[in-house]
Amino acid sequence: MKKILLATTALAFSAGFAAAEVSFSGQAKMGLNYDGAAEKETSVHSEAVLYVAMSGETDTGLAFGATIDMIVEDNGDLNNDDTTVFVSGAFGKLSMGAVPEADENGGIADIGWDDLDTDDVAENLSGDELDDYLSYSFIGGFNETLSMNVSLDHNVNYTYAADAFSVAVSAKIGDEEVDSYAVGGRYNFGDAYVGLGYAKHEIDVSRSISVVGTPTGITFEGSADAEVVTAVAGGTFGAFGIAAIYSDGSIDIDAGGTTGSYDVDAFGVRGSYTMDALTLVAAYSEADMDGMPTLGGGTAGDQKRYGIGAAYDLGGGAQLAGGVARTKTGDADSETIGDFGITMSF
Amino acid sequence: MKKILLATTALAFSAGFAAAEVSFSGQAKMGLNYDGAAEKETSVHSEAVLYVAMSGETDTGLAFGATIDMIVEDNGDLNNDDTTVFVSGAFGKLSMGAVPEADENGGIADIGWDDLDTDDVAENLSGDELDDYLSYSFIGGFNETLSMNVSLDHNVNYTYAADAFSVAVSAKIGDEEVDSYAVGGRYNFGDAYVGLGYAKHEIDVSRSISVVGTPTGITFEGSADAEVVTAVAGGTFGAFGIAAIYSDGSIDIDAGGTTGSYDVDAFGVRGSYTMDALTLVAAYSEADMDGMPTLGGGTAGDQKRYGIGAAYDLGGGAQLAGGVARTKTGDADSETIGDFGITMSF
Amino acid sequence: MKKILLATTALAFSAGFAAAEVSFSGQAKMGLNYDGAAEKETSVHSEAVLYVAMSGETDTGLAFGATIDMIVEDNGDLNNDDTTVFVSGAFGKLSMGAVPEADENGGIADIGWDDLDTDDVAENLSGDELDDYLSYSFIGGFNETLSMNVSLDHNVNYTYAADAFSVAVSAKIGDEEVDSYAVGGRYNFGDAYVGLGYAKHEIDVSRSISVVGTPTGITFEGSADAEVVTAVAGGTFGAFGIAAIYSDGSIDIDAGGTTGSYDVDAFGVRGSYTMDALTLVAAYSEADMDGMPTLGGGTAGDQKRYGIGAAYDLGGGAQLAGGVARTKTGDADSETIGDFGITMSF
Repeated sequence: MKKILLATTALAFSAGFAAAEVSFSGQAKMGLNYDGAAEKETSVHSEAVLYVAMSGETDTGLAFGATIDMIVEDNGDLNNDDTTVFVSGAFGKLSMGAVPEADENGGIADIGWDDLDTDDVAENLSGDELDDYLSYSFIGGFNETLSMNVSLDHNVNYTYAADAFSVAVSAKIGDEEVDSYAVGGRYNFGDAYVGLGYAKHEIDVSRSISVVGTPTGITFEGSADAEVVTAVAGGTFGAFGIAAIYSDGSIDIDAGGTTGSYDVDAFGVRGSYTMDALTLVAAYSEADMDGMPTLGGGTAGDQKRYGIGAAYDLGGGAQLAGGVARTKTGDADSETIGDFGITMSF
Repeated sequence: MKKILLATTALAFSAGFAAAEVSFSGQAKMGLNYDGAAEKETSVHSEAVLYVAMSGETDTGLAFGATIDMIVEDNGDLNNDDTTVFVSGAFGKLSMGAVPEADENGGIADIGWDDLDTDDVAENLSGDELDDYLSYSFIGGFNETLSMNVSLDHNVNYTYAADAFSVAVSAKIGDEEVDSYAVGGRYNFGDAYVGLGYAKHEIDVSRSISVVGTPTGITFEGSADAEVVTAVAGGTFGAFGIAAIYSDGSIDIDAGGTTGSYDVDAFGVRGSYTMDALTLVAAYSEADMDGMPTLGGGTAGDQKRYGIGAAYDLGGGAQLAGGVARTKTGDADSETIGDFGITMSF
Repeated sequence: MKKILLATTALAFSAGFAAAEVSFSGQAKMGLNYDGAAEKETSVHSEAVLYVAMSGETDTGLAFGATIDMIVEDNGDLNNDDTTVFVSGAFGKLSMGAVPEADENGGIADIGWDDLDTDDVAENLSGDELDDYLSYSFIGGFNETLSMNVSLDHNVNYTYAADAFSVAVSAKIGDEEVDSYAVGGRYNFGDAYVGLGYAKHEIDVSRSISVVGTPTGITFEGSADAEVVTAVAGGTFGAFGIAAIYSDGSIDIDAGGTTGSYDVDAFGVRGSYTMDALTLVAAYSEADMDGMPTLGGGTAGDQKRYGIGAAYDLGGGAQLAGGVARTKTGDADSETIGDFGITMSF
């Protein structure tokens, strides 16, 4: 009784489509991760994603739709990866849900197979990533910790593109503790691009511990202001590709009675070279966190991560990939991480 | 490698279908909610739903199937919205899972775009809604609260329809704390209908707090009996539509040493007028909760909610909709709520 | 706007398929469970499963794919049931995720409709089932319990099949507390088979209780070694089918200061007879747990479970099924359990 979804790319069929449709695609991975600092250095990883795309068009030609990405990692829970709803037309595109922050005009892709994260260090300050560092904590009581942890995820994005130029604005709307917005612009010339983005975050948290609904008197007041400017550039030149990102941020924190101002920056560059089915990549990233406080009371160390990777296209949607990277945080020793596996597209 | 699901309504294909099949449809929303009483009055909301429908037919012509509604709201968790399994034939239809309670013979639809909830106030007592008010709480200890919160959700429904008349019976079977059943009948004449339903709920809760498996001696005994009669009527008369619901309930509670008897009622009416692509609606609802206790120790105030809304069909499955409502609970001030957004069907 | 997934088995279409595709099938159940030992002896059960299968082929003919089983039981949460990713070719099949443990070369199927679990008792020691008995607990403090509960689920399996013979090896890789692997072989002759498997588990747990990040000094050290040998045999002989499994294990536990060595074994046999649309089954299983400790401080009693069942094929993917079983654990009284319902395949 197995149902077969016609996996066709035959556009001839599309003439007969109803205005609204549901379509599916997928991705999966299986392979090995290596972490020189872990007790068990080698671990296996597998994941499968079902991409649901729903799309339609109004009588006046306005396009609308939604995407749901359903993911399972290592046979764990079935989770929403990203879900977005949008309307687009001559006026541009308005999206809600898992929208990109507008100061992200093109970061750098990761290297290797799964999770070497050279891109994450470079993008430490842009988009919604800064919330990892604005979670200044206060040890509470009654088995609870009070902290300033919030999410800077934006939930609305408006993008307008005209020829080679696009502009976007995004924001987090409706949150009682966070005001956050971003603007960005990007210009494509030939196979190259440059982009500039600005983000502003204001956090104001007032939290307390209650036991069975009764306040204990233990409270935490915290606030933070952050501004981040991010520039990106890159392009494809024959078999070579290059992408770079640089972010500069200034952050003021007043949380749990402690205040501080921090000038932080992060950058990364990634180069690739493609020969037939083989692609070689290298990346280098740094983040200078200027001694920012972190959840738990410590100090966020500066981060450095660099590595090389390779990918080989097996055809039919499958690709072998792997990489090795070195990573260093603060004064800790450098560690080696690596990965190798297969990635499948359906 | 994107797979395209043939979104066809061409019944010509159906002749070749295997007996059992899986099909998909979807819905999505994006827009704004306004709550005059909230700290941030305006918030955004987005959601996407994938409807999975599985159906088949036995050799003797018995139809069977299941539906799973998978929903993501505001890019949050991937959840089951409603999942139902059924068998139907000349004997009627037997359903399990997310079944309707049989005393719900047609409530009133909501107005506006997303969540003005004029229907919820009118349906305060019918179906499984009364469980919101049967959660009388007792402050416990060891960071835990003991209360009578239970669910009145039925898990079995049997419906038999003959011409214009249908009867249904539903129940919650197998729950150790709740006995609940309902019966209902509905008669359609032309484009109009009347319906009558009766529900009976018996709750008997005995709960205690344990610490690491050891009883603390803190216990809670609670019981409640409730009977609710619900009448509905409505119809479509040319461009006009009207729907009304009235429920009358009597409730006895003996929980945590406190007893009480309550006579409650709720009603609502909703009218609509359609001109081409535009539909205008208005609704008024009240619920008199007779000072019932609520979780946390307070008293359930009487509720009143009314508003107007409009919807405009954009074609292709998309619709613009919005509304404004006034809501009042107990002695609190009236508040204004509103919404505006787009709804998409795929 | 309902989308219809073409539920075709017409292989004529497959010639036009792209190399990678996403396909769907499903299953659902609704019916009654009976448990003579429960307060409410009769309960209803419903479930619906969407099977997502993604598959592709590389240019050199290597097959790859992933499966995600999405399940909802009794209108509860939407869960991952099993998710597996694989690559297969002339070298064999490599799988990650929800893989079979290699010492499972064919257990015995359950009887009845849903959950009489005569198979579970017989398979008490094989695969990952032994983890239920290696969860020796220690009462902690601060509302927390420390125990040795771990999962023996393997996450990698490699299987090689040549004609009638297949061999497999599987392991749990990357877990800091568990080392576990298994090997197995199976030989098919005609419609019969024999199989032999071996599993080795090493558990080493060191856990402690912290309050708001501060260690309390309450710790738990536990370790266990287990070896299990499992033999299976069975076959289909005309209208008759038979399957048997026998496992023998030796377990050493040193947990929370208490040590013990246990010789355990379990076996089960299941026979079936098919007449047209009707299948009759009977099964008998026993597990001798040699007084092993269990979570909570008690002793695992020996288990015995046997019963009969019947299934009737309604055609079109639907089947009526039911069964009755007797179950006995340790010195407790024997209890009667039963089930009856419909199973649907889509």
